[in-house]
Amino acid sequence: MTTPAEFYQRHRELLDRAIEAAADRDYWSAYPESPSKSVYGEEAAPAGEAAFRALLGAEFPIEVPGATTTVSTEPGAYVSYPKGDPGDLVAAARAATPGWRAAGPQGRAGVAAEILRRINARIFEMAHAVQLTTGQAFVMAFQAGGAHAQDRGLEAVAVALAESTRIPAAAQWSKPQRGGDPLRLEKTSTVVGRGVALVIGCTTFPTWNSYPGLFASLVTGNPVIVKPHPGAVLPLAITVQIAREVLTEAGLDPNVVTLAVEERGDGIAATLATHPDVRIVDFTGSSEFGNWLEANARQAVVYTEKAGLNTVIVDSTADYRGMLRNLAFSLSLYSGQMCTTPQNLLVPATGIDTDAGHKSPAEFGADLGAAVDKLLSDPQRAVGTLGAIVNDGVLARLAEAGTLPGVLHPSQEIESSRTPLIVHLDVADEKIYTREWFGPISFVITTASTAESISIFEQTVGHHGALTALVHSTSDEVLGQVRNAALDAGVHLSENLTGGVFVNQTAAFSDLHGTGANPAATASLSDAAYITGRFYTLQSRRHVS
Amino acid sequence: MTTPAEFYQRHRELLDRAIEAAADRDYWSAYPESPSKSVYGEEAAPAGEAAFRALLGAEFPIEVPGATTTVSTEPGAYVSYPKGDPGDLVAAARAATPGWRAAGPQGRAGVAAEILRRINARIFEMAHAVQLTTGQAFVMAFQAGGAHAQDRGLEAVAVALAESTRIPAAAQWSKPQRGGDPLRLEKTSTVVGRGVALVIGCTTFPTWNSYPGLFASLVTGNPVIVKPHPGAVLPLAITVQIAREVLTEAGLDPNVVTLAVEERGDGIAATLATHPDVRIVDFTGSSEFGNWLEANARQAVVYTEKAGLNTVIVDSTADYRGMLRNLAFSLSLYSGQMCTTPQNLLVPATGIDTDAGHKSPAEFGADLGAAVDKLLSDPQRAVGTLGAIVNDGVLARLAEAGTLPGVLHPSQEIESSRTPLIVHLDVADEKIYTREWFGPISFVITTASTAESISIFEQTVGHHGALTALVHSTSDEVLGQVRNAALDAGVHLSENLTGGVFVNQTAAFSDLHGTGANPAATASLSDAAYITGRFYTLQSRRHVS
Repeated sequence: MTTPAEFYQRHRELLDRAIEAAADRDYWSAYPESPSKSVYGEEAAPAGEAAFRALLGAEFPIEVPGATTTVSTEPGAYVSYPKGDPGDLVAAARAATPGWRAAGPQGRAGVAAEILRRINARIFEMAHAVQLTTGQAFVMAFQAGGAHAQDRGLEAVAVALAESTRIPAAAQWSKPQRGGDPLRLEKTSTVVGRGVALVIGCTTFPTWNSYPGLFASLVTGNPVIVKPHPGAVLPLAITVQIAREVLTEAGLDPNVVTLAVEERGDGIAATLATHPDVRIVDFTGSSEFGNWLEANARQAVVYTEKAGLNTVIVDSTADYRGMLRNLAFSLSLYSGQMCTTPQNLLVPATGIDTDAGHKSPAEFGADLGAAVDKLLSDPQRAVGTLGAIVNDGVLARLAEAGTLPGVLHPSQEIESSRTPLIVHLDVADEKIYTREWFGPISFVITTASTAESISIFEQTVGHHGALTALVHSTSDEVLGQVRNAALDAGVHLSENLTGGVFVNQTAAFSDLHGTGANPAATASLSDAAYITGRFYTLQSRRHVS
Repeated sequence: MTTPAEFYQRHRELLDRAIEAAADRDYWSAYPESPSKSVYGEEAAPAGEAAFRALLGAEFPIEVPGATTTVSTEPGAYVSYPKGDPGDLVAAARAATPGWRAAGPQGRAGVAAEILRRINARIFEMAHAVQLTTGQAFVMAFQAGGAHAQDRGLEAVAVALAESTRIPAAAQWSKPQRGGDPLRLEKTSTVVGRGVALVIGCTTFPTWNSYPGLFASLVTGNPVIVKPHPGAVLPLAITVQIAREVLTEAGLDPNVVTLAVEERGDGIAATLATHPDVRIVDFTGSSEFGNWLEANARQAVVYTEKAGLNTVIVDSTADYRGMLRNLAFSLSLYSGQMCTTPQNLLVPATGIDTDAGHKSPAEFGADLGAAVDKLLSDPQRAVGTLGAIVNDGVLARLAEAGTLPGVLHPSQEIESSRTPLIVHLDVADEKIYTREWFGPISFVITTASTAESISIFEQTVGHHGALTALVHSTSDEVLGQVRNAALDAGVHLSENLTGGVFVNQTAAFSDLHGTGANPAATASLSDAAYITGRFYTLQSRRHVS
């Protein structure tokens, strides 16, 4: 047995460094993103693949409170998972709470850091599980589903530990009294979790989008029920398995973390989210269900990441080729199946000034299509960028958008991937571009001027939300206007990305992901507001004896 | 003109010290609580009283957006105030927002500290205004309505400044790239307020309960509409007047802070709280309206302090006289018209062990009544403790409770004050003691044992909420059990108070007041959770040029 306090001592240096990085917002990462042998060793790749293969076609080895049956919902995986009753899961979580509360913030952070260490040790197995369930290419699965997800998890641990220890556990209070001894009290402060937490995973980024909520709730003293999307169970099942293993080793009730699976259509997310004892809900997925949760899970604090209209304002550029290359990659990565992929590219009808001359919207659209074709010209490399389409909904939207007039770049099929569809629209076509088209579908929208682009950006993002925004301009005045518009619309902004940084990617410990400032989300990964609603600090005080 | 940055420099040392105190939770206070000449000077008292008298019977000099009429709602004050239309107030607040956002966290904290400095400079005038409107005795009005309220305001400024600057305004990000130059970005982070804030004041502590929300919202970038209770307008009118004066001097739109008065029954609090542009609501008052706000002001984050069943567990004591004296004062202070006054005193039927021998519940009840009588034996001193009854609702409850069987200590009339009514109940009388009896009404409730007392405490407070809890016991085992029960019920605890610290008082910078962990409130004054929902941090990033 290793106590929570011992796990904390073991990982203290890492945790201190992570807290420092989250405060500085400079570059820092705890988990290497390169799957190379020089980093993870000669044996890691084959061993991870073998461990992954051993899971396929079998019942996943995990204990689930109250489970009497199993389900198997992932296409092509044939893994089955024990299925627990929602009431039993909540009861088991409640029963596990007192011991978890008693572990204290540092003890809980130590356990969390050990869970992450072991997840990282199984990163190749995890990458295969993410690849299988999401359709991401292996390297992307390794990075986004492995190292970057772990970094986002550790970031949440760090911010949770920092925020839940701002009020010291013990304090001495001594108030001077005129003509007498001071009044003296000793005071203790205890962090108490809000209650049972529920994490509802998504199908495209099962780990990256679940780890912040999972670890934020854990470190602040809450038991967590992890409810994966039926299409992407395995990555979170592995995660929960590891968490339970560490909890058991720490002498704690493993039901601090449990797995809640379902048959497609069972709707247990809604059942659990509205259970009176469930007090925290983290959700990533559709705006429809996210809005439903916000309206109906009234007994809980609800953190959602939904969808919106990611927007690019193209005004001018000093690096036309770099801009096109960067945009082409952003549209193509994972076949646009990211909540951060740009959808609406606003271009003035008068065209844009570039280092390669003035370009009309039509020229820009053609050049962007050519840049996409160049990026994806090698089929094998293309699949490595595009991954696979995750479900039929994406294909249906792609088919629908393909019938629109003004197609600039048709989508092509490469194995189970699809290349970006780019359609030209006019600013008047707002019925089309104010809808979210999740998948490889983007619009080049002609506006009267950059001023109108900014106005459309502010209105549409303010009203419908967005996870990302990007501007290309060589004018300081325009950049200033767009920065102000981004603050008014409430969205994070990237400016003039022409190199190896892309608008659809954010870096843990430096970039916030999402914001409650627009309708696409209610929280940022991971700032203090994402943490402080998950716990209470309760005090007691007494005279000093 | 003094810019916000200059105000910040002027008050920087104070703000740094306040942030430090809020982190340490030891004793600290910025504003002296003694109204003595040695502290505030020879002239402060008469000058403050003269300034107060000059306000009476006149129209209060303050500009209110859209005001065309005035109202006068405070009994005995005859002060009239310009009345603005809710829509105009919200529009004016919105118009004032961009300049306030641009002032930045430090600039806003500097302006807030200057507002508090000038409020403190008018503390005698304020104390008279609080005394007139709340019925508190002068010294209590000076302390709770003056110095302590200012300390709570500064505490909110400090925590707001600390929390809104955790993410630095600028950061450099440099990611190593294998075989190439590092990827380098510069990133800026901007604090953006959530939107228009509304502070709904109460009649008993118009400043103490309003300042935390007012200053927390201000410093995090939100304009604030201050809506006083119709019975206690003057203290908040003075506050808003000062705030507008400082804002104007700082070159800012004074409509960052506005006053919203109404005729009794107008219900503008509900109108404003549900306005789509009002995004933050702070409320102190009845559970009924607080719960209504939580259910209906869905577009806003709602911080409420309502009411509950403040409970005392009496198990045993090593200082019987000290315990009785301390309890007698807690029941008597401001005629029990505090959200923190103990209502339910749980005593085991088997009696309590004390340093003065074993005491039956009947003996304890009689001795408590005698301690109250002794405390209030001198009529003039009694009025100084009791203050005046604030409204007819209190008198009606007192009359109703006076007809219960088992009166241990009847309430007596001393001028416009009332002494505590103490009634004996059995644990089976839950229909009576699970109701909140705001005012000088307390129950000595006989339980089977301390174990049952603890169980009743946990159940009733968990279900109905409480602002305070107190235990008297000489047993470490019992104290441990009650501490655990307080964590489970979710309430702050005081233990064995027998001296000059009282369960109904909390100290800024050290004690949290209220908690979202039980139904009596949704927030603690002032922890990070009270702050972080009031703003967003928005980032922008670009390549380093």
